[in-house]
Amino acid sequence: MPEHFNLRREGTVAVVSLDRPDRKNPLTFDSYAALRDWFRELHYDDDVTAVVFASNGGNFSSGGDVHDIIGPLVAMEMKELLRFTRMTGDLVKAMLNCGKPVIAAVDGICVGAGAIIAMASDLRIGTPEAKTAFLFTRVGLAGCDMGACAMLPRIIGQGRANELLYTGRAMTADEGERWGFFNRLVAAADLEADAIAWAQKISEGPNFAHMMTKTMLQQEWSMTLDQAIEAEAQAQAICMQTEDFRRAYEAFVAKEKPVFKGD
Amino acid sequence: MPEHFNLRREGTVAVVSLDRPDRKNPLTFDSYAALRDWFRELHYDDDVTAVVFASNGGNFSSGGDVHDIIGPLVAMEMKELLRFTRMTGDLVKAMLNCGKPVIAAVDGICVGAGAIIAMASDLRIGTPEAKTAFLFTRVGLAGCDMGACAMLPRIIGQGRANELLYTGRAMTADEGERWGFFNRLVAAADLEADAIAWAQKISEGPNFAHMMTKTMLQQEWSMTLDQAIEAEAQAQAICMQTEDFRRAYEAFVAKEKPVFKGD
Amino acid sequence: MPEHFNLRREGTVAVVSLDRPDRKNPLTFDSYAALRDWFRELHYDDDVTAVVFASNGGNFSSGGDVHDIIGPLVAMEMKELLRFTRMTGDLVKAMLNCGKPVIAAVDGICVGAGAIIAMASDLRIGTPEAKTAFLFTRVGLAGCDMGACAMLPRIIGQGRANELLYTGRAMTADEGERWGFFNRLVAAADLEADAIAWAQKISEGPNFAHMMTKTMLQQEWSMTLDQAIEAEAQAQAICMQTEDFRRAYEAFVAKEKPVFKGD
Repeated sequence: MPEHFNLRREGTVAVVSLDRPDRKNPLTFDSYAALRDWFRELHYDDDVTAVVFASNGGNFSSGGDVHDIIGPLVAMEMKELLRFTRMTGDLVKAMLNCGKPVIAAVDGICVGAGAIIAMASDLRIGTPEAKTAFLFTRVGLAGCDMGACAMLPRIIGQGRANELLYTGRAMTADEGERWGFFNRLVAAADLEADAIAWAQKISEGPNFAHMMTKTMLQQEWSMTLDQAIEAEAQAQAICMQTEDFRRAYEAFVAKEKPVFKGD
Repeated sequence: MPEHFNLRREGTVAVVSLDRPDRKNPLTFDSYAALRDWFRELHYDDDVTAVVFASNGGNFSSGGDVHDIIGPLVAMEMKELLRFTRMTGDLVKAMLNCGKPVIAAVDGICVGAGAIIAMASDLRIGTPEAKTAFLFTRVGLAGCDMGACAMLPRIIGQGRANELLYTGRAMTADEGERWGFFNRLVAAADLEADAIAWAQKISEGPNFAHMMTKTMLQQEWSMTLDQAIEAEAQAQAICMQTEDFRRAYEAFVAKEKPVFKGD
Repeated sequence: MPEHFNLRREGTVAVVSLDRPDRKNPLTFDSYAALRDWFRELHYDDDVTAVVFASNGGNFSSGGDVHDIIGPLVAMEMKELLRFTRMTGDLVKAMLNCGKPVIAAVDGICVGAGAIIAMASDLRIGTPEAKTAFLFTRVGLAGCDMGACAMLPRIIGQGRANELLYTGRAMTADEGERWGFFNRLVAAADLEADAIAWAQKISEGPNFAHMMTKTMLQQEWSMTLDQAIEAEAQAQAICMQTEDFRRAYEAFVAKEKPVFKGD
């Protein structure tokens, strides 16, 4: 068991959450590093097929803790500051490169680095109470944190992203659904179970192909269209040599539901 | 007349559709190749000014045929697989480079490679019955097919694209309109006529300029903003030397409607 | 006072507008150049913290004037044409690089180069009467003007941008809000005051960080995700050495509202 966050398994789905619900689950130096390391190792872990990043005690995360993180940062020299901002960026990189779909299940407060974790997930379910804010500007910082200026415009559009990043204001759950940040909204009582059920459904596979989907969604980010089409020709040709592709075909011929095995 | 798809002309608008309505218009090796070749030649054909990719018998396309395509693919070696995935990618490239606006008129089933053809069109009209699914995952493959991981996020947003590509679920017509996939929805009875009327309206020109718009929408895909602005300065300066630009000015001065001629 | 556009100050907010309301505020060679120069100098002007690009007499702008601009262009050689298209592109570049948030307050007619100025702003407030059209196609030109093919798809999505650029049709205010072009709609009577109030609110700072947000939103446009995350690690580390970051922390500890000073 990790020390600085909660982790449990529901079948092959890993359920992760931050562990200080009394303070709305702030991130600390330790939990940033622990999550970064866990997502990095996940890349090599075939036993986990999907991740739910869950809320805890009615909130997702309050972001970097003011006392535990912001206080120390104010006193740091540049070398240490860059080590910190690179560590937080490395958490996002590790999530993007873990090879498994990540579903954020967002209830209540989801702000700062917490909002980034939700944004860096592949899919997002929210509750009507979800309040998502990229509030870096409120603590004297810029909206460019952990990839926000690159990722948020592609999820909700450039104009809406600009507003959230300049003002730090909370995006309501309704706005989040209407703007494409949340894939759907569910009641808080159903949130975690729904997210796990969705993760399990996706985990039925084909998981090698899901890994390739996740890989290419990032690889093609800044390619030309011609490059992207060639990259997909190669990636899909690789998937056509998997057993799961054969299994799907044979199941179709036999009028059965395919059972994927991830190879 | 082509052998493997339907083609007719309505004035200068080419109306294309797949030709096996009894099976919801699957694609075959032959129709992929024939469509690719036709769109490639279209680049040099000044008699056609726009394309409507129409539905047929109440459906757009059921994608790559399971028996005619997936069966053979399962048995192929890598060299052949890559030849196939590059051929399908070449259809998309040919559509993007044909120099004429393409309007997809989507009724009923629009899945797999059929959904890609709709996505690679410039404009999309749907019916309330349109069901669009990037269902590669259902046959054991990845969502990265024919450019989907690059193009779909820019049309409907990254979060919604992720969901469709990981799950293969159908996007309803209402979602498609709300998310910006469909420019509008019309009744099935009006679909083809409305699409042709729209194509004819756009074909009134200026068609050289439309070709340049289509070109630059792709050229600028992964440019920096400064590069894009310079590229447009050059492209628009070229358009300012066309006769159509002069015709528009002279019509305005004469308080008439301009008649564009495409040069 | 500039000669070819209106300029006044509301505290540290500069309020700019075009100055020919009787003709719905067309742009001229002179006003293009004057605005370009003013936005370029703004980069070095610490007394201005935000810009409102306002409407005037019920309209935002009718774009390049037919008599004053299009007539002369029709008679120009390529060298002069390119000098013109680069000048208009330079206005967009100057807006993007001015280092201050720009809010467009859009009432009535907002077309052609006027629509580009709204698009190149960071935030947009509209009125129910706002009619925004990228109508280059109506004067025989392409949709690729001043960066439109790069920027518009990222604001409203690729499919909707294609429609507006190929057809030149007006986007209604409701569409603009629904598609993410307008951050919000307000009554015409409240438009300018609301935009100024929003600009003043944002101007409370942190203004150095806002400048960095604006910078990175453009810098990361065509970076890979890994490059964007590293770029933000560096940019945010710079912001963590500002006094405003320390001020925010100290205000939080003292349970006070931070007072930012822009350093």
